[in-house]
Amino acid sequence: MNHIEWTGKELRILDQRALPGQIKFVNLRSIEDCYQAISSMQIRGAPLIGVVGAFGLALLAYNAKAKSKEEFLKKIMEGVEYISNARPTAYNLKHCVQLVFKALQSKENVDLMRSEAIKKAIEIMNKEEEFSRKIGENGETLLEDGDTILTHCNAGELATIKYGTALAPIRIAIERGKCIYVVATETRPAQQGARLTAWELKQYGVPTTVVTDTAVGYLMRRRLIDKVIVGADRITLDGYVFNKIGTYQVAVLAKEHNIKFYVAAPTSTFDPHLTHDAVVIEERKAEEITMIGRKRIVPKGVRVYNPVFDITPPTLISAIISEKGILNLPFDKNISRILDNGN
Amino acid sequence: MNHIEWTGKELRILDQRALPGQIKFVNLRSIEDCYQAISSMQIRGAPLIGVVGAFGLALLAYNAKAKSKEEFLKKIMEGVEYISNARPTAYNLKHCVQLVFKALQSKENVDLMRSEAIKKAIEIMNKEEEFSRKIGENGETLLEDGDTILTHCNAGELATIKYGTALAPIRIAIERGKCIYVVATETRPAQQGARLTAWELKQYGVPTTVVTDTAVGYLMRRRLIDKVIVGADRITLDGYVFNKIGTYQVAVLAKEHNIKFYVAAPTSTFDPHLTHDAVVIEERKAEEITMIGRKRIVPKGVRVYNPVFDITPPTLISAIISEKGILNLPFDKNISRILDNGN
Repeated sequence: MNHIEWTGKELRILDQRALPGQIKFVNLRSIEDCYQAISSMQIRGAPLIGVVGAFGLALLAYNAKAKSKEEFLKKIMEGVEYISNARPTAYNLKHCVQLVFKALQSKENVDLMRSEAIKKAIEIMNKEEEFSRKIGENGETLLEDGDTILTHCNAGELATIKYGTALAPIRIAIERGKCIYVVATETRPAQQGARLTAWELKQYGVPTTVVTDTAVGYLMRRRLIDKVIVGADRITLDGYVFNKIGTYQVAVLAKEHNIKFYVAAPTSTFDPHLTHDAVVIEERKAEEITMIGRKRIVPKGVRVYNPVFDITPPTLISAIISEKGILNLPFDKNISRILDNGN
Repeated sequence: MNHIEWTGKELRILDQRALPGQIKFVNLRSIEDCYQAISSMQIRGAPLIGVVGAFGLALLAYNAKAKSKEEFLKKIMEGVEYISNARPTAYNLKHCVQLVFKALQSKENVDLMRSEAIKKAIEIMNKEEEFSRKIGENGETLLEDGDTILTHCNAGELATIKYGTALAPIRIAIERGKCIYVVATETRPAQQGARLTAWELKQYGVPTTVVTDTAVGYLMRRRLIDKVIVGADRITLDGYVFNKIGTYQVAVLAKEHNIKFYVAAPTSTFDPHLTHDAVVIEERKAEEITMIGRKRIVPKGVRVYNPVFDITPPTLISAIISEKGILNLPFDKNISRILDNGN
């Protein structure tokens, strides 16, 4: 069962908000459908957001009515602007939308542009799967038989096309006969660790224990964690990692307890444009904290602050695992090197 | 409205599990009722657990039928054993139950023992209120006008009789005209920060913002937190603090960001018997993590680990605020000094 599939005219996705209780698929038929799926978190995870964004623009190209090439391109440019802002923090979204836009621009007429957009979105999807597999193969070399790996949020197959980013090395290690245990943090507010990572790893038979976000320090102090691997939503050229809120404090705790802290991400997550202080940290609605299902947790009238990403500085990161290899410090130099080497 | 009240023959308590949605009072008429209220977390917070434990034994003394003093004392001793184990980590429980037991033993006949037990439980309750007020007055001197204080879990009036421990300095500071802002962490699994601290501070008009447990590091890095104050369930003579799971990592993060980390607790929380490595860390049932209300968060069949306390070493603590004053490092020496000075 693929959680994302291009049927030839629509994108079929697994609605991740309904997990683990319900397996529910949704068909995305327009750029608006894709925008909605991204912004409402029916799908999430930086690489997957990038792919769905790419298909969003491709669907617009496929469907847009236009009397001239100029009119068509005007609609496409509006679409680029629109879909790129479905969520602000993951770099992959802007990057993949741009890849489709550039591919389409290289064609001479509207019909060729339409088919090129779809072709490019499919290519991006296939490449992301390949990137994940390579991240897994590269990262696997860092894992030892018997390791207990803590991961935060979900950076698995559900955040990508296949294998995942943070979870890819674990899956490859298991394919290769290593015994790996996983500790998944709940990851409030949206609970991707408890809901998604646990669900996904259960499918693959990986022994997984879910803990609250409050238990990380205690587990580390008790020496129950060997390594940490997380994903990323954006990595700037100076080596700052934007990822799910709570990543930064896990990194501080890992350093305090001399535990290796790895970030796994494809090069589509690396932002060559902005420095870390210019990136927007998304704040989401209060209800993600105040309500769980229909149950009210926080009394009415009490303020809530809900930033959903944070920033981990390079000094806390042991290495970055990309499809092009394992990057060590200094990240600024090493990131530029692999990006220059064809992205 | 008092959340705990002795009516003359029963203990009337506010059921804290129902907050913030419902205001629901429950009457405790027997030691079994008190045991149940403590173990099911209808009431919680180390000082409050101690008081309810004391009333549990007093209710047993009040109700116990016995033909002889020996038979009565045998029942009482069984009661001491029973109620002391309603929850394992908070020291106040054993301590307050022992205070009632000793007071009762000092009397010559069963009738005097019955009335002495009730008298002592009431005295313990009144003293805890007095301790909290003094903790507030002592701790208030550490707070500056305009401070934003982060607190974890609920160590407020709902965890004590009045004023609280961690929240007492904040309430006194406000009484004295200082402007104090509070950041309350949600505190998974049982969400005492979101449900109880936010509810309580709203009553007193203290500006409070609820955040997820994952946001602590991010807030500190952004310099949005001036000080941290937490309560304690047990403090050993070597200065190790047992408190709600997540306290330790907040302390590590505070140190990393040069933020003062204070622990507020009455001397009834200080354990003169055990060293920190001998204290039992309570593990509670998986459903506290897997279910919220009727909503399943963690897929069936996935393992969960739910320790609900952790251990903060003295090196991470700036000072301990007790009713007898502010204790500085070295804690081992300073704790012994105040305990010797009449506990």
